[in-house]
Amino acid sequence: MTITATQQTELPVDAALRARAGKVIPSGMYGHMNVTLMPAGFPQFYAEGKGNRLWDVDGNEYLDFMCSFGPMISGYANPVVDAAALAQQKRGDALGGPTARMVELAELMVDTVAHADWAMFAKNGTDATSLAVTIARAATGRKKLLKGGTAYHGANAWFNPNPLGSTPEDRANIIDFEFNDLASLEAAAAEAGGDAAAIILSPFRHDAPGSTDQYIVDPAFARGVRALADRIGAVLIMDEVRTGFRLHTGGAWEPLGIEPDLTAFSKAMANGYAISSVVGIDSLRQSAADIFATGSFWYAGAAMAAAIANIGLLTATDTPAQMNRVGQLLRDGLQSQAAAHGFTVFQSGPPAMPFLRFEDDDSLATAAAFTAAAVRRGVLLHPAHNWFLSTAHTEADVAWALERTDDAFAETRTLFG
Amino acid sequence: MTITATQQTELPVDAALRARAGKVIPSGMYGHMNVTLMPAGFPQFYAEGKGNRLWDVDGNEYLDFMCSFGPMISGYANPVVDAAALAQQKRGDALGGPTARMVELAELMVDTVAHADWAMFAKNGTDATSLAVTIARAATGRKKLLKGGTAYHGANAWFNPNPLGSTPEDRANIIDFEFNDLASLEAAAAEAGGDAAAIILSPFRHDAPGSTDQYIVDPAFARGVRALADRIGAVLIMDEVRTGFRLHTGGAWEPLGIEPDLTAFSKAMANGYAISSVVGIDSLRQSAADIFATGSFWYAGAAMAAAIANIGLLTATDTPAQMNRVGQLLRDGLQSQAAAHGFTVFQSGPPAMPFLRFEDDDSLATAAAFTAAAVRRGVLLHPAHNWFLSTAHTEADVAWALERTDDAFAETRTLFG
Repeated sequence: MTITATQQTELPVDAALRARAGKVIPSGMYGHMNVTLMPAGFPQFYAEGKGNRLWDVDGNEYLDFMCSFGPMISGYANPVVDAAALAQQKRGDALGGPTARMVELAELMVDTVAHADWAMFAKNGTDATSLAVTIARAATGRKKLLKGGTAYHGANAWFNPNPLGSTPEDRANIIDFEFNDLASLEAAAAEAGGDAAAIILSPFRHDAPGSTDQYIVDPAFARGVRALADRIGAVLIMDEVRTGFRLHTGGAWEPLGIEPDLTAFSKAMANGYAISSVVGIDSLRQSAADIFATGSFWYAGAAMAAAIANIGLLTATDTPAQMNRVGQLLRDGLQSQAAAHGFTVFQSGPPAMPFLRFEDDDSLATAAAFTAAAVRRGVLLHPAHNWFLSTAHTEADVAWALERTDDAFAETRTLFG
Repeated sequence: MTITATQQTELPVDAALRARAGKVIPSGMYGHMNVTLMPAGFPQFYAEGKGNRLWDVDGNEYLDFMCSFGPMISGYANPVVDAAALAQQKRGDALGGPTARMVELAELMVDTVAHADWAMFAKNGTDATSLAVTIARAATGRKKLLKGGTAYHGANAWFNPNPLGSTPEDRANIIDFEFNDLASLEAAAAEAGGDAAAIILSPFRHDAPGSTDQYIVDPAFARGVRALADRIGAVLIMDEVRTGFRLHTGGAWEPLGIEPDLTAFSKAMANGYAISSVVGIDSLRQSAADIFATGSFWYAGAAMAAAIANIGLLTATDTPAQMNRVGQLLRDGLQSQAAAHGFTVFQSGPPAMPFLRFEDDDSLATAAAFTAAAVRRGVLLHPAHNWFLSTAHTEADVAWALERTDDAFAETRTLFG
């Protein structure tokens, strides 16, 4: 095995932009797209995206398996989605009120998502999870939220993983449980007494960032969650902000025959255009109407036109099956390569949203070295967050990636002896 | 005075869309763009916007003084803003990370807003006010927020005007004061004891919807707010989500020589593209870096390109002066017409964000009749919310509008004897 010349070793334009950003953006960047804690080689700034490829501001090309952390699902600059958005943008985006696209998109969500009888739209995933919680509290007249202990359900004061700047009161009504652990959920429900407004969870455990495996849901747990929610009169909220349209277009637990009461969608709905949605069952319709819910850009038409076009693409064929099939090829290839290079890796989560962990790598040092070696060779992965497949990823792309990850494993082996 | 034929009396396409929406959207529509409580004649759904004109889905044309409740400031479908957004969209919007537009826009905000040393970007105005509050709490280690009693600062559980679905804990740390009433602010500060994290207020009192006048800030109150914040060590947060770039591009209190510590912007930043921003002083930079702040679409480039182009347009000339001058013409004309038709009206707020109230009209019945008569004649106003001027509104447009509002006053007079 020879290690090929790395694609990029210096990112001078990126470095210049980082220096400028350091003066006018706190710590130079914030949130999940801040790469200051990532290994060297990860670009901070990007110039272009097309299909499954990204180009950084220095002109380096990447086969991208992060999909903007989820929003990209039909390929960057998808011509069908972009044409729909542009046609609407030219007629009007934020107008004096909503456009007909809002009705059409609500009808499409109701047609697409099995449990949905109605839909509302906002901008952030956090808007959708927050609306869902508010609707649940309005409907039940209760306060407590049962939530996975380390699960991420949004960037607001209730949910976000860093309490700095929030108050104890903001988090006073959260009771934690463990995913796939019905006993812990029962204990949380008992702690809530009669005051459990909602159970909120993701369709599988995808806590990030970190070094912990993802857990596919145990069907018995899923059935138990539904039964418990019914028994205690709590609203079951499914947070599909990260998973939506990648696992099952009708809802992630649809194959299990289990329907939540409310679902929050966002990231992949419109292939990158900013939109989110909460959909729900008929008995929660009035509470959804009664709460205060609005935003300046929530009614704008272009992102809705994009969502209609994108969901049309995603439901025309069984695109989740396609993404999972291609993701499984990547997974199988990485597993073989890791073993060949003497690494034990654990891969978890749905193949369309893969996560790879090295054995005995709580510090993520090995993951950092491997993904840094990969990104320098033009394959964009992440050391501490699940990756994402899209419909723009083909078998040929996986083969292209695996040629380079093989070299990345080899380089990582040289670093770890 | 003859009453001309009304422009529109029936909205059949709108009615059909409302019927469809009633099945798939809670109560058919939600939030500030829900017109179910508005007088007949206000369309719910719009098809197109160009300059200062809107067309509803039935093809009726309106001279629009609502500007999408603020976002439109440079004319619908402004060619300069749209070209900038489209050029960026074609290269990439939501990519693997931010584009160079994010640095350029942060630099532009720092150059444009007098007190700004740094900038962060999000999607909703609520995101920006929430980030500001979080930064203030992180910086001070305190909890309490001093807030105008009926002021609107966002749609989240802390701020929104309807507590349904929020918890008492969500609002436990809010202490109210009255705008332009320094004694009430002093009392609120005393109630907070040493625990006041922030004072949050808008640059003038623009509570809505309702029948209460807007109050321009008393300079002595503004100076007192700044002095009190300094004295008690609270962060002064200016909510310019509604006012930003319409009053003074360098910050609304800039003409008074008073600078806040943090300012939230959103609506008009990008002429309708979804973006918001919090900007702040250097001493709050580290707290801004330390809090958890992120969103899937917060780094996307197209809305940032639109904001750069739009702010460029707004700062090339003294556009607030232009909007206020044209707004004053509208105000003067309406005042004369109202008197001629035997109505006493009170007009308040900056002329670029006018509010008109009829005497003895707490029920808003007269305002409803007048604005309904106006909208049927093609002039889009609002009975219970301030209106908005844009740079696309000219003296000729005001003359066109006043021809129709004269008839609208006449019709209103026939209804109220």
